[in-house]
Amino acid sequence: MDPNVIPHVSIDCVVLGYDLDDLNVLLIERKMVYQGTEYLDFKLPGDLVRWDEDIDASAHRILQDLTGLRNVYLKQMQAFGEVNRLKREPRDLEWLRSIDHPEERVITIAYFALLNLDQIKSQDYIPTPNARWIPVKSVPVLAFDHNRIIEKAVEILRNEIKRNPVAFELLPKKFTLTQLQKLYEVILGTNFDKRNFRKKIAQISCVVPINEKQTNVPHKPARYYMFSQDVYEVTRKDSFDFTV
Amino acid sequence: MDPNVIPHVSIDCVVLGYDLDDLNVLLIERKMVYQGTEYLDFKLPGDLVRWDEDIDASAHRILQDLTGLRNVYLKQMQAFGEVNRLKREPRDLEWLRSIDHPEERVITIAYFALLNLDQIKSQDYIPTPNARWIPVKSVPVLAFDHNRIIEKAVEILRNEIKRNPVAFELLPKKFTLTQLQKLYEVILGTNFDKRNFRKKIAQISCVVPINEKQTNVPHKPARYYMFSQDVYEVTRKDSFDFTV
Repeated sequence: MDPNVIPHVSIDCVVLGYDLDDLNVLLIERKMVYQGTEYLDFKLPGDLVRWDEDIDASAHRILQDLTGLRNVYLKQMQAFGEVNRLKREPRDLEWLRSIDHPEERVITIAYFALLNLDQIKSQDYIPTPNARWIPVKSVPVLAFDHNRIIEKAVEILRNEIKRNPVAFELLPKKFTLTQLQKLYEVILGTNFDKRNFRKKIAQISCVVPINEKQTNVPHKPARYYMFSQDVYEVTRKDSFDFTV
Repeated sequence: MDPNVIPHVSIDCVVLGYDLDDLNVLLIERKMVYQGTEYLDFKLPGDLVRWDEDIDASAHRILQDLTGLRNVYLKQMQAFGEVNRLKREPRDLEWLRSIDHPEERVITIAYFALLNLDQIKSQDYIPTPNARWIPVKSVPVLAFDHNRIIEKAVEILRNEIKRNPVAFELLPKKFTLTQLQKLYEVILGTNFDKRNFRKKIAQISCVVPINEKQTNVPHKPARYYMFSQDVYEVTRKDSFDFTV
């Protein structure tokens, strides 16, 4: 095995990307032969940490190596350290052997990123051939405990979207109110009444209508809005009942 | 070295305890001789993870072994994984050698707990002889990166106290408004006007006055209050501007 890596500590990256329709997660295709049968499944972009790199640097290096994605804002999320987290399925073990990975225990530190896929397209991003965006709602059974790691990431997103302006990380710079409503509906898994939703948004000063409308749409063009960080900084209330 | 532990992954516990005067952190005395001189310093209760235990179980085991404290609610906080986090001072290295600890890199997963010291006293808690409560404001230079880990824990507490009812974890079940104000002042490092503070608290339904006053105090006895989780569940607003 590679002598440059710590055999018992890995990083896994949960990169969530929104494409105006669905919340997607960036996964890596894993091809393997197990007991004569060819399998194709998916895993999070992840790998072992090197002896000579801080864990944050490791997360950026691994994400870029495995997906091509770089300069993404990654935030540490949580460590996952169950004893048997790597040994759920016999073919997972087989795969570890095939890549000369230690079969002993690995504790993984998960990192988290939010992107809008518009932003990706505008970057000079060359995805690696086996990196795939998969809708979170149709993620199949993944390698190891990676389903659980994604569930935890989505849970964090659901909580954050209610108290911090993270929704706007997932939308293009200019968005319509219909797009904003859909984003909340997709992430929270619910439906809002259009009038009530717009009433609430109208009270949020940092969601600013701009003097520009959609073009080339088959329906009546809607007005664009943007999120203003400036206005947010000035107008945000301390976000909680116990603030004194 | 102990073959039962993973040599590169440790747990450190930041246990914060409030005693109505000060916010304290539970530390372990470390005695060592370095270059002929005897040193006494402190570190967080922490140790390496065993091969056969989940990291959460590991945190509870380590805290109990090193401090005597058990059945404490511990929450995972953050992993600290800088390359040189163990090698800040030459005597740290010397100490690692003295306890037969690997000198190679160790990534630590920090856990976090909030206690009121009243609660500790009422438990059948037998502290180990070298466990000490030290006021956070007078924590000396600690082993390794442990000062940084405590700073991060306090930062989390400062944020949380503004948006979740964590203050009440740090107070006895029954408390006076003066005690509550002091707690906020100590943690946020600020002073509040008494009248304004009481006006704000009066608006928080889940801080409930009870029909009981202080006894045996040298001043006019103050009324006791308690935090009601029941009322909190029913009355809490979604804590943020972007809630829809």
